[in-house]
Amino acid sequence: MLKVGLLGAGRIAGVHATAISAHPGSTLAAVSDINTTAAEKIAAQYGAEARDTAAILGDSSIGAVLIATSTDTHSDLIEKATAAGKAVLCEKPVDLSLARAQVCQKTVAASGCPVMIGFNRRFDPNFSALKKAVDGGEIGKPELLSITSFDPAPPPVAYIKVSGGLFRDMMIHDFDMANFIMGASPAMVTAVGSSIVDPEIGGAGDVDTAVVTLTYADGRIAVIKNSRRAVYGYDQRLELLGSEGLLQAQNMLENTVVKSTTQGVTGAKPTYFFLERYMPAYAAEWAAFVEAVDSGKPLPVTLEDGVAALAMAEAATLSVKTGAPVSLASVLG
Amino acid sequence: MLKVGLLGAGRIAGVHATAISAHPGSTLAAVSDINTTAAEKIAAQYGAEARDTAAILGDSSIGAVLIATSTDTHSDLIEKATAAGKAVLCEKPVDLSLARAQVCQKTVAASGCPVMIGFNRRFDPNFSALKKAVDGGEIGKPELLSITSFDPAPPPVAYIKVSGGLFRDMMIHDFDMANFIMGASPAMVTAVGSSIVDPEIGGAGDVDTAVVTLTYADGRIAVIKNSRRAVYGYDQRLELLGSEGLLQAQNMLENTVVKSTTQGVTGAKPTYFFLERYMPAYAAEWAAFVEAVDSGKPLPVTLEDGVAALAMAEAATLSVKTGAPVSLASVLG
Amino acid sequence: MLKVGLLGAGRIAGVHATAISAHPGSTLAAVSDINTTAAEKIAAQYGAEARDTAAILGDSSIGAVLIATSTDTHSDLIEKATAAGKAVLCEKPVDLSLARAQVCQKTVAASGCPVMIGFNRRFDPNFSALKKAVDGGEIGKPELLSITSFDPAPPPVAYIKVSGGLFRDMMIHDFDMANFIMGASPAMVTAVGSSIVDPEIGGAGDVDTAVVTLTYADGRIAVIKNSRRAVYGYDQRLELLGSEGLLQAQNMLENTVVKSTTQGVTGAKPTYFFLERYMPAYAAEWAAFVEAVDSGKPLPVTLEDGVAALAMAEAATLSVKTGAPVSLASVLG
Amino acid sequence: MLKVGLLGAGRIAGVHATAISAHPGSTLAAVSDINTTAAEKIAAQYGAEARDTAAILGDSSIGAVLIATSTDTHSDLIEKATAAGKAVLCEKPVDLSLARAQVCQKTVAASGCPVMIGFNRRFDPNFSALKKAVDGGEIGKPELLSITSFDPAPPPVAYIKVSGGLFRDMMIHDFDMANFIMGASPAMVTAVGSSIVDPEIGGAGDVDTAVVTLTYADGRIAVIKNSRRAVYGYDQRLELLGSEGLLQAQNMLENTVVKSTTQGVTGAKPTYFFLERYMPAYAAEWAAFVEAVDSGKPLPVTLEDGVAALAMAEAATLSVKTGAPVSLASVLG
Repeated sequence: MLKVGLLGAGRIAGVHATAISAHPGSTLAAVSDINTTAAEKIAAQYGAEARDTAAILGDSSIGAVLIATSTDTHSDLIEKATAAGKAVLCEKPVDLSLARAQVCQKTVAASGCPVMIGFNRRFDPNFSALKKAVDGGEIGKPELLSITSFDPAPPPVAYIKVSGGLFRDMMIHDFDMANFIMGASPAMVTAVGSSIVDPEIGGAGDVDTAVVTLTYADGRIAVIKNSRRAVYGYDQRLELLGSEGLLQAQNMLENTVVKSTTQGVTGAKPTYFFLERYMPAYAAEWAAFVEAVDSGKPLPVTLEDGVAALAMAEAATLSVKTGAPVSLASVLG
Repeated sequence: MLKVGLLGAGRIAGVHATAISAHPGSTLAAVSDINTTAAEKIAAQYGAEARDTAAILGDSSIGAVLIATSTDTHSDLIEKATAAGKAVLCEKPVDLSLARAQVCQKTVAASGCPVMIGFNRRFDPNFSALKKAVDGGEIGKPELLSITSFDPAPPPVAYIKVSGGLFRDMMIHDFDMANFIMGASPAMVTAVGSSIVDPEIGGAGDVDTAVVTLTYADGRIAVIKNSRRAVYGYDQRLELLGSEGLLQAQNMLENTVVKSTTQGVTGAKPTYFFLERYMPAYAAEWAAFVEAVDSGKPLPVTLEDGVAALAMAEAATLSVKTGAPVSLASVLG
Repeated sequence: MLKVGLLGAGRIAGVHATAISAHPGSTLAAVSDINTTAAEKIAAQYGAEARDTAAILGDSSIGAVLIATSTDTHSDLIEKATAAGKAVLCEKPVDLSLARAQVCQKTVAASGCPVMIGFNRRFDPNFSALKKAVDGGEIGKPELLSITSFDPAPPPVAYIKVSGGLFRDMMIHDFDMANFIMGASPAMVTAVGSSIVDPEIGGAGDVDTAVVTLTYADGRIAVIKNSRRAVYGYDQRLELLGSEGLLQAQNMLENTVVKSTTQGVTGAKPTYFFLERYMPAYAAEWAAFVEAVDSGKPLPVTLEDGVAALAMAEAATLSVKTGAPVSLASVLG
Repeated sequence: MLKVGLLGAGRIAGVHATAISAHPGSTLAAVSDINTTAAEKIAAQYGAEARDTAAILGDSSIGAVLIATSTDTHSDLIEKATAAGKAVLCEKPVDLSLARAQVCQKTVAASGCPVMIGFNRRFDPNFSALKKAVDGGEIGKPELLSITSFDPAPPPVAYIKVSGGLFRDMMIHDFDMANFIMGASPAMVTAVGSSIVDPEIGGAGDVDTAVVTLTYADGRIAVIKNSRRAVYGYDQRLELLGSEGLLQAQNMLENTVVKSTTQGVTGAKPTYFFLERYMPAYAAEWAAFVEAVDSGKPLPVTLEDGVAALAMAEAATLSVKTGAPVSLASVLG
């Protein structure tokens, strides 16, 4: 039984607490947060203790920590946790600074501790079924990937200002998805973006609508579309054209009811946000982490994956600014 | 080149005129109707002559006639046309009276002339693709057939009164469809019906909503649902469960546009009525008739098929009246 | 916090144990089963005690029991549990004997204890959304209901022999669904059935394929189709035609991946069986039970509902035997 | 009745001949082709005369010509036909040379004759329904357009060599579609492309897979994806995200049959190529041309539209070569 310390007690930490508790091979031992009331609440619900982070990292009975704190603390906590010998599952992104994330990567490599980055979408039943079909050769050789990823509504501008921008905060999931599906990093990143949803987002120096084209050394192409607003719900689709066919992962719907009237034929909307859509993915992600930690086998998502996605976000940010394609190599330095 | 006489100049006759003219192996030579203005109009449009029926039947250069007159004239015209040596394609139903249709069947058999009944739905690209899949063994052995057949709106009560009733006028298409898909006539017919759409239809002695269950000697079952009113359009679906799977033919839609808003995800309605839905079927039906006449091969739908469907309508009518199952044998006498 | 005793420790009992534990307002206190090992296993997993049934019923701290034992014990246990003052949620069917179920109904009525029957499908998110739309008048006045309910594969013939037959064992869910959607019991039941899936099922005196037509006093009609075998998965669909439109609840699919190749466009199959399809329904059912017990409000499914569905099963069984429609009144005696 | 001369007698000319003949307001008077046998064949089929081009242009009874010859003759023929006072419908593209097309545009402007370019997809029932919904404000303000346009199989390399390349030959339809939907030309064109489908296409200096991003002065974005090979058929989809929703035009399918087996749930493929998919569009295009010519109202697609799409093709070609975004203004000169 893997004893787990949860760092952070916000909304996403609550989701992880449920997954940790429900898994037959893990138990939630302790929770920490700068908001001690929040930590105590989660601890009470799942029979864990509210402690401070140092105490959790210093407790040798705790084998793993799940880092669900604010992004600016991720690199530090990953380093401290691995220094303390813990296995780590850290929410994305590794850091807003690519340079800092690369330092973290080197530090961790020295520790030998397993660190997994929480790209939960790889564990979504739809995307993972699609990946399995690709790897099984069901559409031949992949050629052209398209990712559609729209949020239902933009976050507050106050959040936008500290988020690192759309590419580091939102599209980073899609960069990782492209890496997951294509099995490689792109050579060049070309991005366009605008703040057409809300001019205040533009005022804060960010974009809210963006299209990024990725080209690969072998000629393959990927395109990612992001919008901060799709009023009908959380739009999360992916399609891959290959030499022998097309694979598409479509949206999950709220229910299967269809109504036909004089107004048309109407079905349910996509599930509204990431908690509804990706709840099964969080459980599968945690199960994969526990399995890898228990067996000593490689983690399904690594710190390297986190750095790669961050580098793509950096390249896209630069491409929008300069109006020119940016090579990934130039960003990775 | 097959020279064709068209008997009747109403709406459905116009549809047939187009098909006859567009076919490279046939030409519309003459049109007759008690409404001579209507006959002249169609004749002018397609370069044919308006003549009376006797003249058309007496013209030895005309090889085939298409009968699209009112139902009460079908048997007489079939007999006269075959007596004159014409190949015949006659609109359904053969007759409102089963006994009269059976007499017609015997008379025609003596003539040796080919007579096809216009069950156009057999030639619908969807239903014919489904039939091909069944015959190809794609779902193993058929077990349970369901036919959904709803009109968009009920006809005037005045029409209902002379129509022969829902089973002879509307469900007769579905009876033929069941015979087409199952490749056999049922042993027993069990029907329930009510006039829930419009009490005036009930007042006229008819039903507007009905469910008929057909059971076959080998244990297979079919169920047909009819309603005179589906406000969203012409609902024409069919599904067949077999030992190795399910086949469904779904509705044709007006277009493929889908709109997602806060109100849901809305697509187009089914095509509104039989002219939109079955237009390709009328052309395919005519092509099959010409091919059979030219080659001397068996017709794809025969007068026997028309009589069989009519017998099922008779049995269903009786079953609703008596509240008991009716054997097809008892009706066929 | 409602303390719950679970009677039975089989597969479905395990599903209920999860729902009871996960609910914030209930806790699993004790489990009993004639197989004490099975009871101990569930008890250990959820921190409950394995006890015998008498001890559970005699424990005044236990406020509710969930009966998930074999069908032939349901009536006795309902009576004993209500005599002991427990609130009861009992798996369907109430009993294989309608007469026995009616006695149970009277006995329970005298006790005043709330008894809910586990027609879990009423709590399926799809069917409950459809019901809400009907009640909201979204398709006007209901006219024609169709229920398609196919199992993926037939149970062993040994099970068939003690099951009470397809109508009491399988279609009973659909009878209840018809009552739920239509908000009334039918006047007449007309059934046809055959053993076309497996002749051994016929040899055991049962049918494996059946169509039942229900007619209502006000002219509405419902039709239920059952098959013991749909090789593509658990086929659970419902559609309702109303004066202003059609509502359909379609199947849940394993995932949303669609593959287009030269062979066609292929999506995932329906979820394979009731555990996958109805897992969310079991949780919602339990939540509804707890809410009713806590608030003293009426239960959403009652013992009367269980008796009504059983009476319809009795009528259908009789209708297949006699080849004639059977009135529900004649069966209810 | 508009008398029409058809210049060209190839495959697409045959499609236009049918549309001209079937339209109640136009008649096919004459056909010319350097292959006189082909011209005679079409003429015979539709009761027209085979003549040479000069004779057709010199015949004052002919009010309109349809130009369906090879691309390199389009500009010359448009100029000659308008000089002769004919209304013109010319197949796309106007010319492979943007400069030549611009000269043609000026020449024609001087003549005052109506010239329509055959961007048939604007008349596809799906795309035109979507456009109508956009213009009706059904999804609020348009923000992000995506066009997916894949051919079923690449043309012969010999054709590729004279085609002007993917952007002028294939994506030109999509450039016009973007202009149609967005109601404006883009400011910047950014293209990536590779020859991953067939290296021989790359050897011929062309790409077979490409993604083009268009950005508009007001911040809107469009992205177009092209592939020369989608083995499952002709993939022609479009979606537009707006401030109040999403509109999608999906593929037309060969039929509506769906098969569910242990292998999954399989539907029909998209219609295989442009003749199947766009046949209704050709008829609607012709009807729109006739209506504009008869009424003297503006043409729905103009020579300016043809030049605009060609300029976008030029910009995209340049962008792939230089690896940098290209402004439309710089290309238009």
